[in-house]
Amino acid sequence: MKSLFVADIRENQLVDSLFLVASKNRGVTKGGSSYLTLKLLDRSGEIEARVWERADDLGRGFERNDFVRVRGQATLYQGKVQIRIQDVMRIDEGKIAAEDFLPKSASNPETMLDELQAILRGIKNPHLLALAEACFADPELMRLLKQAPGAKTIHHPYLSGLLEHTLSLLKLILKVVENYRGIDVDLLLIGGFLHDIGKVYEFSFDRAIDYTDEGQLLGHLVMEVELVDRKIAAIADFPAELALLVKHMLVSHHGACEFGSPKLPQTLEAVILHSLDDLDGKIQAIQNLPEKEPGSKWTAFHRAYGRSFFKANSQCDDGSGSA
Amino acid sequence: MKSLFVADIRENQLVDSLFLVASKNRGVTKGGSSYLTLKLLDRSGEIEARVWERADDLGRGFERNDFVRVRGQATLYQGKVQIRIQDVMRIDEGKIAAEDFLPKSASNPETMLDELQAILRGIKNPHLLALAEACFADPELMRLLKQAPGAKTIHHPYLSGLLEHTLSLLKLILKVVENYRGIDVDLLLIGGFLHDIGKVYEFSFDRAIDYTDEGQLLGHLVMEVELVDRKIAAIADFPAELALLVKHMLVSHHGACEFGSPKLPQTLEAVILHSLDDLDGKIQAIQNLPEKEPGSKWTAFHRAYGRSFFKANSQCDDGSGSA
Amino acid sequence: MKSLFVADIRENQLVDSLFLVASKNRGVTKGGSSYLTLKLLDRSGEIEARVWERADDLGRGFERNDFVRVRGQATLYQGKVQIRIQDVMRIDEGKIAAEDFLPKSASNPETMLDELQAILRGIKNPHLLALAEACFADPELMRLLKQAPGAKTIHHPYLSGLLEHTLSLLKLILKVVENYRGIDVDLLLIGGFLHDIGKVYEFSFDRAIDYTDEGQLLGHLVMEVELVDRKIAAIADFPAELALLVKHMLVSHHGACEFGSPKLPQTLEAVILHSLDDLDGKIQAIQNLPEKEPGSKWTAFHRAYGRSFFKANSQCDDGSGSA
Amino acid sequence: MKSLFVADIRENQLVDSLFLVASKNRGVTKGGSSYLTLKLLDRSGEIEARVWERADDLGRGFERNDFVRVRGQATLYQGKVQIRIQDVMRIDEGKIAAEDFLPKSASNPETMLDELQAILRGIKNPHLLALAEACFADPELMRLLKQAPGAKTIHHPYLSGLLEHTLSLLKLILKVVENYRGIDVDLLLIGGFLHDIGKVYEFSFDRAIDYTDEGQLLGHLVMEVELVDRKIAAIADFPAELALLVKHMLVSHHGACEFGSPKLPQTLEAVILHSLDDLDGKIQAIQNLPEKEPGSKWTAFHRAYGRSFFKANSQCDDGSGSA
Amino acid sequence: MKSLFVADIRENQLVDSLFLVASKNRGVTKGGSSYLTLKLLDRSGEIEARVWERADDLGRGFERNDFVRVRGQATLYQGKVQIRIQDVMRIDEGKIAAEDFLPKSASNPETMLDELQAILRGIKNPHLLALAEACFADPELMRLLKQAPGAKTIHHPYLSGLLEHTLSLLKLILKVVENYRGIDVDLLLIGGFLHDIGKVYEFSFDRAIDYTDEGQLLGHLVMEVELVDRKIAAIADFPAELALLVKHMLVSHHGACEFGSPKLPQTLEAVILHSLDDLDGKIQAIQNLPEKEPGSKWTAFHRAYGRSFFKANSQCDDGSGSA
Amino acid sequence: MKSLFVADIRENQLVDSLFLVASKNRGVTKGGSSYLTLKLLDRSGEIEARVWERADDLGRGFERNDFVRVRGQATLYQGKVQIRIQDVMRIDEGKIAAEDFLPKSASNPETMLDELQAILRGIKNPHLLALAEACFADPELMRLLKQAPGAKTIHHPYLSGLLEHTLSLLKLILKVVENYRGIDVDLLLIGGFLHDIGKVYEFSFDRAIDYTDEGQLLGHLVMEVELVDRKIAAIADFPAELALLVKHMLVSHHGACEFGSPKLPQTLEAVILHSLDDLDGKIQAIQNLPEKEPGSKWTAFHRAYGRSFFKANSQCDDGSGSA
Repeated sequence: MKSLFVADIRENQLVDSLFLVASKNRGVTKGGSSYLTLKLLDRSGEIEARVWERADDLGRGFERNDFVRVRGQATLYQGKVQIRIQDVMRIDEGKIAAEDFLPKSASNPETMLDELQAILRGIKNPHLLALAEACFADPELMRLLKQAPGAKTIHHPYLSGLLEHTLSLLKLILKVVENYRGIDVDLLLIGGFLHDIGKVYEFSFDRAIDYTDEGQLLGHLVMEVELVDRKIAAIADFPAELALLVKHMLVSHHGACEFGSPKLPQTLEAVILHSLDDLDGKIQAIQNLPEKEPGSKWTAFHRAYGRSFFKANSQCDDGSGSA
Repeated sequence: MKSLFVADIRENQLVDSLFLVASKNRGVTKGGSSYLTLKLLDRSGEIEARVWERADDLGRGFERNDFVRVRGQATLYQGKVQIRIQDVMRIDEGKIAAEDFLPKSASNPETMLDELQAILRGIKNPHLLALAEACFADPELMRLLKQAPGAKTIHHPYLSGLLEHTLSLLKLILKVVENYRGIDVDLLLIGGFLHDIGKVYEFSFDRAIDYTDEGQLLGHLVMEVELVDRKIAAIADFPAELALLVKHMLVSHHGACEFGSPKLPQTLEAVILHSLDDLDGKIQAIQNLPEKEPGSKWTAFHRAYGRSFFKANSQCDDGSGSA
Repeated sequence: MKSLFVADIRENQLVDSLFLVASKNRGVTKGGSSYLTLKLLDRSGEIEARVWERADDLGRGFERNDFVRVRGQATLYQGKVQIRIQDVMRIDEGKIAAEDFLPKSASNPETMLDELQAILRGIKNPHLLALAEACFADPELMRLLKQAPGAKTIHHPYLSGLLEHTLSLLKLILKVVENYRGIDVDLLLIGGFLHDIGKVYEFSFDRAIDYTDEGQLLGHLVMEVELVDRKIAAIADFPAELALLVKHMLVSHHGACEFGSPKLPQTLEAVILHSLDDLDGKIQAIQNLPEKEPGSKWTAFHRAYGRSFFKANSQCDDGSGSA
Repeated sequence: MKSLFVADIRENQLVDSLFLVASKNRGVTKGGSSYLTLKLLDRSGEIEARVWERADDLGRGFERNDFVRVRGQATLYQGKVQIRIQDVMRIDEGKIAAEDFLPKSASNPETMLDELQAILRGIKNPHLLALAEACFADPELMRLLKQAPGAKTIHHPYLSGLLEHTLSLLKLILKVVENYRGIDVDLLLIGGFLHDIGKVYEFSFDRAIDYTDEGQLLGHLVMEVELVDRKIAAIADFPAELALLVKHMLVSHHGACEFGSPKLPQTLEAVILHSLDDLDGKIQAIQNLPEKEPGSKWTAFHRAYGRSFFKANSQCDDGSGSA
Repeated sequence: MKSLFVADIRENQLVDSLFLVASKNRGVTKGGSSYLTLKLLDRSGEIEARVWERADDLGRGFERNDFVRVRGQATLYQGKVQIRIQDVMRIDEGKIAAEDFLPKSASNPETMLDELQAILRGIKNPHLLALAEACFADPELMRLLKQAPGAKTIHHPYLSGLLEHTLSLLKLILKVVENYRGIDVDLLLIGGFLHDIGKVYEFSFDRAIDYTDEGQLLGHLVMEVELVDRKIAAIADFPAELALLVKHMLVSHHGACEFGSPKLPQTLEAVILHSLDDLDGKIQAIQNLPEKEPGSKWTAFHRAYGRSFFKANSQCDDGSGSA
Repeated sequence: MKSLFVADIRENQLVDSLFLVASKNRGVTKGGSSYLTLKLLDRSGEIEARVWERADDLGRGFERNDFVRVRGQATLYQGKVQIRIQDVMRIDEGKIAAEDFLPKSASNPETMLDELQAILRGIKNPHLLALAEACFADPELMRLLKQAPGAKTIHHPYLSGLLEHTLSLLKLILKVVENYRGIDVDLLLIGGFLHDIGKVYEFSFDRAIDYTDEGQLLGHLVMEVELVDRKIAAIADFPAELALLVKHMLVSHHGACEFGSPKLPQTLEAVILHSLDDLDGKIQAIQNLPEKEPGSKWTAFHRAYGRSFFKANSQCDDGSGSA
């Protein structure tokens, strides 16, 4: 565990902590001596740093994308805090706790996985239950599910965000089906469980959340259809039409061609899955947007949704007596 | 109450019932005598009818769009049942039960309205509660709310369909908010109640469901903002920002400019309202689509959604043993 | 082989041939006797037919979608030829030659398959060659490939149309790569071979070309990725990145989200494959459009391309001397 | 009235004038002393300024968004003029003339309002005339109309710009109707008067032109329908259909859903209003775009219109003799 | 001049007039004798006709698209008037007045052309005036301009409609420029004159208004640029930039790529021309739409504009006293 | 020919070479003395430069967009090489070789033109051959064709790029037509030759590749139709329909309205021309994109195509044994 995070560094503070080197540039002063300009980051943010002494020596010991131990002092430069480095040395990746460098869910992944499995074990259709169990029995898949983010930026963009979103969606499904007759809840639950599972392969999330090559070239929809196809192939007597219904939900869950679904939702359950998936993501995203500026009732602009949001509150009204 | 509905008329059956005249054309036989070709309808469907005798006489007594009492016999012509009319006479509109001629909700409007009011009376914010009560206290509004359809064709296209949809949405809201913190349930409930209330003015629904002139020229979004503006003006000390939040939900609930909302949803509650409104409408519409052809697993094509739907069922699988 | 095709039936001709019953309706004459109105079709077109005698008797012996043997005489009614039927009886499907009832390619499927295999056996990359051979070794796949149409309506909409299009595309690829350096021809050939192979499952083509349920709910892109995934799984040491490159071409070959590709082409070969696939389909479609009306220089309107085409010809010019 | 505007400040000039503080940042020199970097603005533009001496002292006396009196000297830094400040002190907002800090129309608002009222008093329909008079009789509305801008950036983006645009549009309407029969000029004039009147609430324009919360959440179309609804409610016997026609023009005047009109123009007058409104705005905007660079025949890029404009001139041709 | 028009034919009337044969089909009665079914049309509409006697004889004498003289009697059949023909014979095209068979402008083309020339001769720029005169001096161009329609269906779809629209636009331009400074009226007038002149080649209008091959393959924008290019080439010293400004107005006058303009309007005059052209067309089209049904306040649906229009009228209000 | 290019300048190197001045700014040091900051460029890239001594003197001798001879020394500043200038003086444009300052094709324009002419002289249709020869006989056109770029940025954005692309397209056409019957190769070749010829007027390419005023206001499609119209006018007996077919290919070759073609391709040859033109451009562009970062398998983002590309390679696989 890191001792000090970027967001907590204050002017004049002594710094001795671990960071990821996001960029590294060498410069030369007017006096002709070398210096280094670094960008250091951890899960709380990014800070600039300078090495003014022994720059060439120290610079040989690490590269961009390395983890380093940095010692120095925080100073103010042009209104911003930066670190004036005395010493910096490369740290082996094995000694690093990934969650120090990437944001993570506020909920415990083990607890969330237990809750998710409990819900899915309520499925009555034996084939669909077998499919869920086949996934639970895949340790690599479960390991990745506990870690993977929900997205790079749009919603749940942090470690275990995929699991957090999936669990929230399953619980939402259980609520919503109470309001209607004739919805196939087993189908909807398995669809909720698997709709984003391909994201465990779509993203890399060791130093930063980014797309993998296969994420970029195939996308999680196609990859999770392949995963389901393999799991089902190993289950005896899995009905062909049921397999089709499950895969259709995965393929169509983005709801429209322009969002990357090659087919529109064409079953009631596929329609509901798309709708609730979209809603759960939006609620998380909106509730976690920072303010536009301190004290503003407006959030920062959300690029994918194309707008800022106004923080409504019917309780905190204008003091006209009754509330 | 009508004695016999179009959908129940069989070959050779004697007919004596009330119908609406959807079209009326006079023809001349090769022999030179007049005859009438009519289209008759009630809420169950449409049937062709012919007057071969006394056509000019009988024809003088009624026009298109009149209600008539028809006596005659059902016969088969080119594979279709039609009525060979002996007698037909105009019936005064006052003697007609509207629900005989328009489809209506399967639920009782009085019961639904009671349930809706009970939910809304759980609102804690006194201003929003006062707004709901102001609506309940408007007898004309309540009378129309009990009758109005949800749409002309897209979803809930039948008498009391608006009330049925509104109630279902409120119940769905109550379920969904259990899954999240930080949602302003009072706002969301008042938004759910009022989001389509302008439809009572947007549609005429005496003989057929159709757009009114103001429905076509202003639309229900704008008309319900005016309604809310007037109701709020009569409530003492209604906070200005709260009024803005309510109106914003109405104005934005279609979710996108291309669907007629002049503003995108920009509060969390407006986002949720749009999403659940859309979902509730779609569930009703999909579940009530007829089959493409008898016995097909596919529904008829839904023009507004641009697709047919496949009737999924994880329970009735292909008999391969395990279910 | 049928003795007489719809397109060849002339007024007064005696008819004794096999047809598919496209529709069947019973009527009653003014005199009170039954008659049948049928639509009969074969690969050359559709014709109306009437049974005026023994209609109830004969009508019991067959249904819509049955194949029948029809005897009767062609007559002119309201300017159109129709068949006045003397006798009609159901024929067992096993006695029918499918190509009598569906249009088929002008080329021999066995010959085309041989040519296709010869081209693909020129692939130098041993993994991709193994993938092609794995497909050739799947007899059911090869059987379907020889029969499947290229589309329902857009291009190559006839039996063996898929194979005809695939072969033409491979030959086009071999031409085009001669004009450029640096194109990976092995990749492009395997992509050309497999880009539409999922259509063997997307369409049913026994009595008419139509979408299967899985064709409608998953589409050929996703189904062929599954097929390739299974074939590759059975090949030892198939490089993971190479599998990714192959699947990417399949997934992206429609070229844009709005045409059902969840990913844009992102390799040079995927870009070229999309372009040449599109071009080959268009050339076939345009060259086979009927004239707008006899003698017109304009073709009928092509719905998917949204236009008619003008038959250009630089050789048949207006006789002004020089040509 | 300010003594010196940003646009007039030259190198070495002594400065003593009022400005709005657009940003304020504190820095520390290498030598360890504090300094302030400010952005100052008035209606003529923006200038950078530095406080090198007594920075902490002076900095305590004002914040961002305050008006200040600044004394100092203009210097050149990296090719740009900036102010080296000797003294800066907060000025009470009441002592400021708003038009010093925001651009304003070149025409006098009182004169324009007189002219506008004279035109509208030519309306013959007594109900519409009464509606116009009801607006004239609302002093707060008239006060705001004289000040409000036409937009934040697109066209007439300066104080009194709304009034200038409205007046120009009314005069344009009077010209255009001379060319046609059958246009309802009274309707068109009242539509022209009210089509943007909601902008008085949509924008705040004390220190900068910006959207208000209600401008962002409801928009001027909806707000002006509410305004008209209230004004009409206070006029005896205002015909319902006439009210509908007026409101329809307001609601539809952006001409298309994607520009925020929930309804398309569906009366001849609504169509004309949309067209002329759009044209008047574009003429103002194009004629006031700065040049791309000094001497260029091309204007700067107009973001909303998505293009630059070429300054056509048939009179100043290339000197080839005849002009 | 025709003696009797389709729209004026009543039941039992004797008919002896000229018509265009829109379709011609031969049938055979149950009794085995031939008959002909014709569609006849003139500028007022279309009527069905039957030849029951000497059908084969008479039928040999004319074909579809011929003009014929028809004698017979109007009878009622299935509620519609049709002509029972006694005699029909082909009439030479030279004996036909084109305006009997195509709708035409209510204004006299000679008068309109005089007025148009008078306006254009007010142009002060000598080059542009020379361009106008070069067009006036082209007799074939002037002949076609007097006849050509404004469109096939959208607006001014009748003989001399192009000239009517062009003249109305020029007069509108003269009105609008009075409201602004800095508009180059000479440029705008020449643009108004020439913006649709290519329509004389885009449409054929001898028997029906239809697209020519070059209209379909090039379009009037490109064809009129070629025309202007040739006219300018014949004028000495025409400034190159002025030619560019003229052509730019032609090329861009549809206002957007999706309406077939390869370039957006990029001069003030091109922007105004597009706007006023569009407005003038819409006013004509809306004012000439038929009612949806007799007595309706709504017009028929206009396909290109995607809506019906409501006939507003502030004068005929609901009788509440004051109007 | 330049002695030293920007891309070859290394730290500490002495510089004496010719450059184009892309920007020039004067600054003042804290010490009060003037200095100049310049951006210098040639075809290989851009470099920053400073004049610290005699800045005002030297600065008077040249302006932005001048060519200069620069003497100085390369130094490292903030990680980047810049030139510390000792002397700089303006050089007359006549002494400059254009290809030193703009990138150019790797192929020799004379050779390419010969090859292009040889191909086109294979055209059999005498009218089309005459059209090609008429272009070859226009020395100014040929001079420009040898120099013009293919685009500003999208593909072939370098001197002689237009010729390189045109030649490659003609050769591609010759390959592709071998695969099909019924393509009019003469038409396709003349279309390939002329489809972009208007670019010689659309771009200026003396110091940088940029749009001319007529390029911006008319575009190359329209300008090349004018060119062809003039060439054809000078050829005796050129058939009108053949001219139409040629012009249609030019007008439609962008394939869609949104890409600036006023008409869709409506002949087989126009469809093929659009497709192959697009493909040839994309292949050049993709193969010449730089890497995203050194060593990456991904290219830089291509703005017009909206994506990066992955460098596929079936030969260099992951060493898992078999290749």
